[in-house]
Amino acid sequence: MDATNGSQPLESQAKAFFDSAPPLQNTHQITQKLVQFIQHNSSPLENGDFKRIVCVTSGGTTAPLEQRCVRYVDNFSSGHRGATSTEYFLKAGYAVIFLYRRGSFQPFCRSLPDDPLLECFKPTDDLNIQVHEAYSEAVKRAVVDHHAAVTGGLLLKLPFNTIFEYLQMLQLVATSMRCLGPCAMFYLAAAVSDFYVPWKDMVEHKIQSGSHLLDVQLVEVPKMLSMLRKDWAPLAFCVSFKLETDSNILLNKAAIALEKYKMDAVVANELTTRKEQVVVVTRGENIIVQRDNSHSGNDVENPLIKLLSVRHAAYIKDSGSGK
Amino acid sequence: MDATNGSQPLESQAKAFFDSAPPLQNTHQITQKLVQFIQHNSSPLENGDFKRIVCVTSGGTTAPLEQRCVRYVDNFSSGHRGATSTEYFLKAGYAVIFLYRRGSFQPFCRSLPDDPLLECFKPTDDLNIQVHEAYSEAVKRAVVDHHAAVTGGLLLKLPFNTIFEYLQMLQLVATSMRCLGPCAMFYLAAAVSDFYVPWKDMVEHKIQSGSHLLDVQLVEVPKMLSMLRKDWAPLAFCVSFKLETDSNILLNKAAIALEKYKMDAVVANELTTRKEQVVVVTRGENIIVQRDNSHSGNDVENPLIKLLSVRHAAYIKDSGSGK
Repeated sequence: MDATNGSQPLESQAKAFFDSAPPLQNTHQITQKLVQFIQHNSSPLENGDFKRIVCVTSGGTTAPLEQRCVRYVDNFSSGHRGATSTEYFLKAGYAVIFLYRRGSFQPFCRSLPDDPLLECFKPTDDLNIQVHEAYSEAVKRAVVDHHAAVTGGLLLKLPFNTIFEYLQMLQLVATSMRCLGPCAMFYLAAAVSDFYVPWKDMVEHKIQSGSHLLDVQLVEVPKMLSMLRKDWAPLAFCVSFKLETDSNILLNKAAIALEKYKMDAVVANELTTRKEQVVVVTRGENIIVQRDNSHSGNDVENPLIKLLSVRHAAYIKDSGSGK
Repeated sequence: MDATNGSQPLESQAKAFFDSAPPLQNTHQITQKLVQFIQHNSSPLENGDFKRIVCVTSGGTTAPLEQRCVRYVDNFSSGHRGATSTEYFLKAGYAVIFLYRRGSFQPFCRSLPDDPLLECFKPTDDLNIQVHEAYSEAVKRAVVDHHAAVTGGLLLKLPFNTIFEYLQMLQLVATSMRCLGPCAMFYLAAAVSDFYVPWKDMVEHKIQSGSHLLDVQLVEVPKMLSMLRKDWAPLAFCVSFKLETDSNILLNKAAIALEKYKMDAVVANELTTRKEQVVVVTRGENIIVQRDNSHSGNDVENPLIKLLSVRHAAYIKDSGSGK
């Protein structure tokens, strides 16, 4: 295992990561979908502006411990933030590329139970099925709104599981969006593994039990945020996330990430309060964004996406171009 | 971290595991559900026999690496085996306690896509919803059959995530089923973590990145199969599973498990062929069980559950009691 990665230039680290990763399945299909989606959404609007496209990443990535994967290290993330934000981005007029962990929360479905089909439907007397009244409106809204966004060409959903799939797909998405210049936004809400086992170092077969201790050594994942900023889509408006369970170190770490990866904003959230409040850390100021508690059904993502949308519009204007 | 566990008697290992585990939420509620379910299903049948109850475990357990859990080690298991087997156990006249990983496959739903609500339904012109024709029968069957099993008191579903939850719940289920004597079956299809980090050794907050290597040390999970056999439900018919990616060591490991944990049968399956064929390893013989390919919709679980049901009936008869 190569512990000297830290001293290599980032480009070599990234190259080594991608060279050694198992190749992405369906690369051609994904690329085609991306090209079509971006083309569909990049004709000028009536007022001469361009539609804005955001790539929302959502859910956690896995780091396999075995090549024929039985065990892996996973990052906790329900995908609630990404799914909710996607709805508000669509409301704000964005087209959304939703890069999500398989099985995580989906846009328009977050008020539904875990198993919506089994929990929301019941048989009728004639052995047909119908929706429980309590869920009737939520189920209808989920299907209708989701269908409208997808068939309207405003929502493209791309699933991943592993850190290898995620980073290869993010690179594909970002290089495809490069042509949008400042009109592209990255909203990187996925909980990405910090550590992984390089594919070539992995055992092929299931790790055998029998010993009393298992010692797993993982190496750091190259900081691909820098690659996104420098190489893949240098003009895009980039928002990353910092999640900590210890609020004492949160803002400091967010500010460090802002500078280190040259993000336009870092959304700082603490595990226990993340649905009530986040802090948007920018170069000029730290903006506290809170959920409006005055009526139910409001989410902290509502004011958050409004704020980011305004900042993104200003960023496009400052760049001196609608495209 | 205590590396000397191996030399302690199993009972002390198990006690240490349970004493240090975070307490199970809703223990009282789960116990009540179990008592009601077992009572409902343990009146004698018309022919004087007793209904048989099986506990099917399904999906993988997680081993958290942090107390306020962001990262964890997970075991790959879709839960397909457990969900499918549950359907065939119900068909064979069993009542089923389905102890499953949250988000894994559910009985009656395995022919449906990942997101059945979003994939199987579409809006109608009047902004209502209807099922896509291709899924019409599958969706109806899922809702109707699932509802019939649950409301008929024949299927009790209990979800878990972590290895701590799983083992505490298995102990609750097993001690509740103890009164059923040989009429109880355990069908342990869940992919249970072999290694974990003891709760007291865990860091409270998220592990910080920044170093180039992460070294995770896990200790072996006490072999609770022995506790189940010896203490929790000593007369039950016990079936465990052995999954390997390397077919060369599979049967040997299954035979060792059969003896070591005093199982009545071990189902040996290899990762790539597990939907086509399994080998049931018993004290007398190894029985190859194959999927019937002559018509579609057949599963290897169909002949497997038939075989186990016959063996279980003989086991009850040999025990000289219907209860």
